[in-house]
Amino acid sequence: MNAKNPKDTLTILTDIVLPGETNALNNLFGGELLARMDRACSISAQRHSRQIAVTASVNHVAFTKSIPVGSVVTVEAKVSRAFRSSMEIYADVWIENRKTGERTKANEGIYTFVAVNETGKPVQVPEIIPETDLEKERFEGALRRKQLSLIVSGKMKPEEATELKALFA
Amino acid sequence: MNAKNPKDTLTILTDIVLPGETNALNNLFGGELLARMDRACSISAQRHSRQIAVTASVNHVAFTKSIPVGSVVTVEAKVSRAFRSSMEIYADVWIENRKTGERTKANEGIYTFVAVNETGKPVQVPEIIPETDLEKERFEGALRRKQLSLIVSGKMKPEEATELKALFA
Amino acid sequence: MNAKNPKDTLTILTDIVLPGETNALNNLFGGELLARMDRACSISAQRHSRQIAVTASVNHVAFTKSIPVGSVVTVEAKVSRAFRSSMEIYADVWIENRKTGERTKANEGIYTFVAVNETGKPVQVPEIIPETDLEKERFEGALRRKQLSLIVSGKMKPEEATELKALFA
Amino acid sequence: MNAKNPKDTLTILTDIVLPGETNALNNLFGGELLARMDRACSISAQRHSRQIAVTASVNHVAFTKSIPVGSVVTVEAKVSRAFRSSMEIYADVWIENRKTGERTKANEGIYTFVAVNETGKPVQVPEIIPETDLEKERFEGALRRKQLSLIVSGKMKPEEATELKALFA
Amino acid sequence: MNAKNPKDTLTILTDIVLPGETNALNNLFGGELLARMDRACSISAQRHSRQIAVTASVNHVAFTKSIPVGSVVTVEAKVSRAFRSSMEIYADVWIENRKTGERTKANEGIYTFVAVNETGKPVQVPEIIPETDLEKERFEGALRRKQLSLIVSGKMKPEEATELKALFA
Amino acid sequence: MNAKNPKDTLTILTDIVLPGETNALNNLFGGELLARMDRACSISAQRHSRQIAVTASVNHVAFTKSIPVGSVVTVEAKVSRAFRSSMEIYADVWIENRKTGERTKANEGIYTFVAVNETGKPVQVPEIIPETDLEKERFEGALRRKQLSLIVSGKMKPEEATELKALFA
Repeated sequence: MNAKNPKDTLTILTDIVLPGETNALNNLFGGELLARMDRACSISAQRHSRQIAVTASVNHVAFTKSIPVGSVVTVEAKVSRAFRSSMEIYADVWIENRKTGERTKANEGIYTFVAVNETGKPVQVPEIIPETDLEKERFEGALRRKQLSLIVSGKMKPEEATELKALFA
Repeated sequence: MNAKNPKDTLTILTDIVLPGETNALNNLFGGELLARMDRACSISAQRHSRQIAVTASVNHVAFTKSIPVGSVVTVEAKVSRAFRSSMEIYADVWIENRKTGERTKANEGIYTFVAVNETGKPVQVPEIIPETDLEKERFEGALRRKQLSLIVSGKMKPEEATELKALFA
Repeated sequence: MNAKNPKDTLTILTDIVLPGETNALNNLFGGELLARMDRACSISAQRHSRQIAVTASVNHVAFTKSIPVGSVVTVEAKVSRAFRSSMEIYADVWIENRKTGERTKANEGIYTFVAVNETGKPVQVPEIIPETDLEKERFEGALRRKQLSLIVSGKMKPEEATELKALFA
Repeated sequence: MNAKNPKDTLTILTDIVLPGETNALNNLFGGELLARMDRACSISAQRHSRQIAVTASVNHVAFTKSIPVGSVVTVEAKVSRAFRSSMEIYADVWIENRKTGERTKANEGIYTFVAVNETGKPVQVPEIIPETDLEKERFEGALRRKQLSLIVSGKMKPEEATELKALFA
Repeated sequence: MNAKNPKDTLTILTDIVLPGETNALNNLFGGELLARMDRACSISAQRHSRQIAVTASVNHVAFTKSIPVGSVVTVEAKVSRAFRSSMEIYADVWIENRKTGERTKANEGIYTFVAVNETGKPVQVPEIIPETDLEKERFEGALRRKQLSLIVSGKMKPEEATELKALFA
Repeated sequence: MNAKNPKDTLTILTDIVLPGETNALNNLFGGELLARMDRACSISAQRHSRQIAVTASVNHVAFTKSIPVGSVVTVEAKVSRAFRSSMEIYADVWIENRKTGERTKANEGIYTFVAVNETGKPVQVPEIIPETDLEKERFEGALRRKQLSLIVSGKMKPEEATELKALFA
């Protein structure tokens, strides 16, 4: 099982915001964007693991910019770190201005997927070796986020989270 | 602007898992559940604020149980804490066994919504006064999660997060 | 097979009206509301019977109030009476005013479902014992509606409909 | 405003049952069929009135045959009677056997629509003059069904329903 | 296997344009119309062949008129010519003016379907015998379009396309 | 208005085939794929023209490989040639094997879009300068396809189609 680079898992989903997918302010509905990010991340996880991949958790999604109807939205998902059978995936969301072509970051989300076999049992996945500075930064942060997630869900005690403790020391 | 209790904001969305909403294992697709939770949370936030409410962030969603096609899924959303114009909402997801009627917790998610006026500008919301033990626990944790969220998005330095620091001391 | 009360079968489906679900007047499309009521009633029937439940007939649905896009719509379904393998279910539909929180009855519908096994064959269901005044009134009316339905579909002669005849005597 | 014949309002909606529209038994979901019938009836009402037409009530829909995934389903809607601003529409649903081409009646439904202007106010519609035997039978029954509907909704007293009383005399 | 006439395969799909199916100009989205035409053509091909029919190619679709939200759209599909296992189907698309009832041709499309058995293997289909002038014209053009399609896809050399060569001679 | 290269207009839409988008053989429904290709092509046309772009015609789509449920499908759209206000766009469709990661060409389609202003009136678009061999081949073929399209729709006489005549000479 050979290690891979984040770019090997890059998944691009560019699509339009249709009127049926908007909220009361005529912007893309949060839930619809969460679903598109989930689909892109699941493909990214599948490309890394060559297995069925199911959503384990959504760690953080920040909606910093509203996305009006008719926008072109691009979700770019890449595996940021792989653990034994789980993978952290970053989904960066961009919108582009039709008239100028300028791309703006609209939001980003962090998902965790688990690779499973046909019976739904977790299976091992290859390692990820980050290349760019941003990939390295996300790779390093992944362990902290994993500990946070374990604490939030009550599966780890704060005092055992060595990575996190260092942060606040 | 009178304070409210979490139960005043309770939103229940019970629905079926249709075949068109499943993944390769015939379980409810993660993205579809995220969208349902977002819709329930947005109603809960709207019931608390009496304003339009838009998704600001998804703080954490854990998918602990897979949900097979044909299941009856109930999303129960309640505001856990209100800040100036933002609200933290917990969505608890339950499935029930058709033959025994037994309810099982399938997963839970924490969303943040912001109340806005017709032009999209944030507006103030009432306070939340928790009543049950679980509501009190979630109310207290909300500030920690808010600090975490600010740190993750680079808007707060770890050393300023007094609530969090206390946790690891 | 123990008798149940209507409240044991209560199913609540609160959801938003999205722009893609509206008609030329920007109100919720009749067909979409019929579908939501059907889903809520099917869950209610399933909760009563602990079996697969399929739509047998829609007895009456009155659309008394139009429901504008962005509304929060609550469908509340409860079994009103159980026969051998069929169940009558009432779906009450409420909308709420975002600014005042006031709930208004938008319409109501009466559906009949049949409990079936995995091969689609009808199976027996428990009795319903009504508790509130409204539940008792609906329970009593159910037999009349059943006779009406049999007459409309040509399966009963008007002179045999003793319940109905009494009404017009 | 010239009277029309039912055939002038005939609306045919033939479509496939996709996997995403089925229930736990792999048959067409009741709610989806109700929505298709509603759309066909609304077009039929619009063709009769040349106005916007909105669903006023569903008087009766009987699901006598289940419709498996992949079926070709035809909804045929025709106005059966016109009152001042409301119209009764019959929707007959047919499925056809792929191998033999044989058509079978799967169910039928009776809807009432009201013609409205751009502000949602009811407007007058032309008369309907039935031609075939079935059209005449449905035309005559429409008044009885209207009285029933008024009684069910508490807007008419049983003793005033002259058409219905005659039936049980 | 008896020959059929185009009218034996006529499939009519009349439906409304919902707000969720429109583009930035509030007209029916091209992709949604392509999908409706594909569904109507697949039923037409199935009615001719009495077999499962899958899309082989879309030969030409011209969007000559835009179709505003709320329009009533009718797709009429008929097999124009049958080859060994493939069928050419014409889909004519009409919109009607709500106020006058006038029908206008909005566009037309030419699809090719292949009849297959349960394992996806092509099977033979009956002949088509055109009756009207338009049907005869389309029947004759079908061979030229087939040759064009084979040339476009590199499966036939231009000099072998006798039908087409005659056209340019 | 500066000329662009095809790569400036590249649009990638990678997504999963959900169970609700399949036909009777559990493969991606033709109509759904046509809709995805149309959305990708419309974005590509918009990126080239910086204007609203509406579907003018679908010139050819060949479905050479069936695409099973659960597949990862990538649509890659690029403008192949620009005329005064219309653009020809090629959409190449790829599927990838989950286990080996191998990409296979599933089909390709040729769409024509027209750039319009807010009132729907055609506006001029920049030129396209092809770079790769495949881009050059498609650029050159575009004029022939345009003439074909004009002949098929009766807007050009075969003897005027100089590009095409040369092909058959």
